[in-house]
Amino acid sequence: MPAPNAIIDYINKNSGKFVQRLAKAVSIPSVSGDAAYREAVFDMAKFLRDELEAVGVTVRFADLGKQVLDGKELNLPPAILGSIGNDKNKKTVLLYGHYDVQPALKSDGWYTEPFTLTVDNESGRLVGRGSTDDKGPVLGWINILQAHHDLKLELPVNIKFCLEGMEESGSEGLDELVVAERGSNKFFDGIDCACIVWRRASFRSTPYLTIPQSDNYWLNTRTPCITYGLRGIVYFKVNVRGAGQDLHSGVFGGLVHEPMTDLVILLSKLVTPLGKILIPGVNDLVAPLTKDERERYETLDYSISDVEGVLGGKLTVSSDKETVLMNRMRYPSLSIHGIEGAFSAPGAKTVIPANVSGKFSIRLVPDQTPDAIEVCVKEYLMQEFAKLESKNTLEIELIHGGKPWVASPDHWNYRAAIKATEIVYGQTPDLTREGGSIPVVLTFAEALGVNICLLPMGRADDGAHSTNEKLDLSNYIEGTKLLGTYLYELATAQ
Amino acid sequence: MPAPNAIIDYINKNSGKFVQRLAKAVSIPSVSGDAAYREAVFDMAKFLRDELEAVGVTVRFADLGKQVLDGKELNLPPAILGSIGNDKNKKTVLLYGHYDVQPALKSDGWYTEPFTLTVDNESGRLVGRGSTDDKGPVLGWINILQAHHDLKLELPVNIKFCLEGMEESGSEGLDELVVAERGSNKFFDGIDCACIVWRRASFRSTPYLTIPQSDNYWLNTRTPCITYGLRGIVYFKVNVRGAGQDLHSGVFGGLVHEPMTDLVILLSKLVTPLGKILIPGVNDLVAPLTKDERERYETLDYSISDVEGVLGGKLTVSSDKETVLMNRMRYPSLSIHGIEGAFSAPGAKTVIPANVSGKFSIRLVPDQTPDAIEVCVKEYLMQEFAKLESKNTLEIELIHGGKPWVASPDHWNYRAAIKATEIVYGQTPDLTREGGSIPVVLTFAEALGVNICLLPMGRADDGAHSTNEKLDLSNYIEGTKLLGTYLYELATAQ
Ligand SMILES: [Zn+2]
Ligand SMILES: [Zn+2]
Ligand SMILES: [Zn+2]
Ligand SMILES: [Zn+2]
Repeated sequence: MPAPNAIIDYINKNSGKFVQRLAKAVSIPSVSGDAAYREAVFDMAKFLRDELEAVGVTVRFADLGKQVLDGKELNLPPAILGSIGNDKNKKTVLLYGHYDVQPALKSDGWYTEPFTLTVDNESGRLVGRGSTDDKGPVLGWINILQAHHDLKLELPVNIKFCLEGMEESGSEGLDELVVAERGSNKFFDGIDCACIVWRRASFRSTPYLTIPQSDNYWLNTRTPCITYGLRGIVYFKVNVRGAGQDLHSGVFGGLVHEPMTDLVILLSKLVTPLGKILIPGVNDLVAPLTKDERERYETLDYSISDVEGVLGGKLTVSSDKETVLMNRMRYPSLSIHGIEGAFSAPGAKTVIPANVSGKFSIRLVPDQTPDAIEVCVKEYLMQEFAKLESKNTLEIELIHGGKPWVASPDHWNYRAAIKATEIVYGQTPDLTREGGSIPVVLTFAEALGVNICLLPMGRADDGAHSTNEKLDLSNYIEGTKLLGTYLYELATAQ
Repeated sequence: MPAPNAIIDYINKNSGKFVQRLAKAVSIPSVSGDAAYREAVFDMAKFLRDELEAVGVTVRFADLGKQVLDGKELNLPPAILGSIGNDKNKKTVLLYGHYDVQPALKSDGWYTEPFTLTVDNESGRLVGRGSTDDKGPVLGWINILQAHHDLKLELPVNIKFCLEGMEESGSEGLDELVVAERGSNKFFDGIDCACIVWRRASFRSTPYLTIPQSDNYWLNTRTPCITYGLRGIVYFKVNVRGAGQDLHSGVFGGLVHEPMTDLVILLSKLVTPLGKILIPGVNDLVAPLTKDERERYETLDYSISDVEGVLGGKLTVSSDKETVLMNRMRYPSLSIHGIEGAFSAPGAKTVIPANVSGKFSIRLVPDQTPDAIEVCVKEYLMQEFAKLESKNTLEIELIHGGKPWVASPDHWNYRAAIKATEIVYGQTPDLTREGGSIPVVLTFAEALGVNICLLPMGRADDGAHSTNEKLDLSNYIEGTKLLGTYLYELATAQ
């Protein structure tokens, strides 16, 4: 069922109040990665607790322990666990969000004070750190609850909130909390599905450093999208060790086994220029493409020129839209990131580096797992190294791994999200899988075993993690309507 | 003819005076690479002028113009051009040396003040910056001239000195000077042969950074050596350019041509793990090995374990002595130094670098020339890149090149040097070619067209360019005898 008109009217009439709520949130510099801001992260938790309690949510702070940061022992900001509604006849949805933000200094290149929400009336933009990532989305839920509270309307579903304050700094403590709080009569008991509102950074013209992870947002700037899958990752470090010290090529060139020679040969055997992974077994673990699935990529509103614009050239491995989309979303990819220990500065040093480490990672898709891929990679590289008949030594380290995630987009959770999008935006959303990983999704998927839907509020050009981060006022207000409508659709979806 | 006994006696009796002369020279911190020491470099030139004039040499300072260093315009230290003797019936030998030194700070790890010559009576070492490189050798010649001067003996040959003050900083201005001063009635007119006294760094257990070039010294610590060849070099930068900016592998991995993939494939096609260069045409330019030459390597006093000791492991490409020596001295070698523009720091960044530059160099031997090799390398890499069918772009830059040098060891100049070594050290020296290049040798060889001999004074473990640089007193004194004896052998050698 659609949301009552009264809710939609309320949202339209109270947009000024909602902007003020966001302005207050942005003014609290809850940077989790800098010890100097830790008090502000706690202030932000208290602000949200007060806001949630004011609209009827029962709130508890879950203590996540301590961490050492910048040489200081600090208390971790709490996870905010909130509940509203306990009707056995209603579904219970878990809403995840985070209240910490990335660092921001005016001197980084902001046109305005990053922790002062600036409303640009001409462009309709709300500029400030956290506006789109993730304070706007979190407040979107609170706006909906306020509407119900003020209008004295019952919520269509039971809601549980899990809001963390360490997402931008590795979600420290969250995995343990989710495991500790699942099971009968614990906080996460009785949850039927989950929703994560996320902004998405892909295909944006933003330098790499500001895109530490990809998020779900519209694939282009035209069509809304809902994300049902994320790739996993395994990151390897391949160490080739030779002499006890770096050598001079004039003195030793020609008489010694050079680690760089071995390493570039090994790295050259990983992947073709067209992106085909050459490690035996890796592709065998990819779940076969179904006809339904293939069709889903055909319907996506997407063109090669979208990505060429961002790349600054015709650099895609294929000019076939479906191939490019599937290479990014549903097939593994292998990227060589660089070499540690070799000569990497400008200039022309004639060194023979003694110890070099090649770094590469593979983005994983179902049914690949980090464990299975690790076996394939190590076996293959050791075999290839043996062929070199080098006297250097090889060591292969797995630096980190994360499983891929994919949800069924045929689940009623998705049907509700799709319906809500059609109602609010008048468009059928694109159903997409994303290239990068979002660890918290895996945390909830694995620990709770429920269907999770990733809904967008912001736009692809919001500049989350970048300077001049913004959320369009229209996205904030229409997004709030989307969240409300989703809850109503959820209540009746089957 | 051997040197008169009176000369040898004089050297033995005056060793204390010679050490004081070296102490005075070391006390002048003539660091050419640091603008703050430029006045001291000029002081060192004046010191040498006074010393040379006192023993009968006619001296002139050749102005080499100006340079910009550390943002300041500085006068270049002069080349000291000296002449003694003008007898048409005698040979004329050019003696090259340099009076500038590498930087040295006590805090770098010196046990004593670097610019105070410290005589360690127990070990017989003279410790101080410049002791072996190159003040000791330069003063060796002056000691010999002093002996002749004090004993009122005629020199057996005419001598011309060319002493520069910028050798440690690229020999700025020297090439132009040599070209300007050659031809009839110019300074370098009438020179029959040349001798460069050099210390040699090869096979020493010293970190790379302290060995910017290899020099001629004994191949092991047992047998003296004389060097008759040096390899040249061509240094390449291979640039592969992709997108306009670095990309995130989660977002773009699988859909874009990655420059690192292309680059490691190109680099993997340059050389085998055993050191065989794969670039067509490069090996064809190597002059064929003659039987005589091969035998020369067989007689060298050298074992694989000498080099394994320095490498810290069994890492040579062959366990055949002659193969290893020839790979270093008379065959080309190719070393991959590193990659600029990729991720080279510790950690696990998931970047797809947008522009990467692989750096490698080839050590050249006759009849290879940088020009000919450049053609082979560019053609080959462009062909290999075309095979990749990549949409990235390739550019190959030659960063710098220097020709190889080889002199005839059958020349009377070498016969004199060999005879002198046999007389002073009681051993037939090893005749070697070296792996690295010494640009000034090529300058004189090409501009003057005379036979050049590289004679050693110091030892392989002297630590030139390193902390606690030293010259053994015995090497200083016996080396002075060697230089004197060489001049007498030169007079009669045919
Ligand atoms: Zn976020
Ligand atoms: Zn974020
Ligand atoms: Zn030197
Ligand atoms: Zn030097």
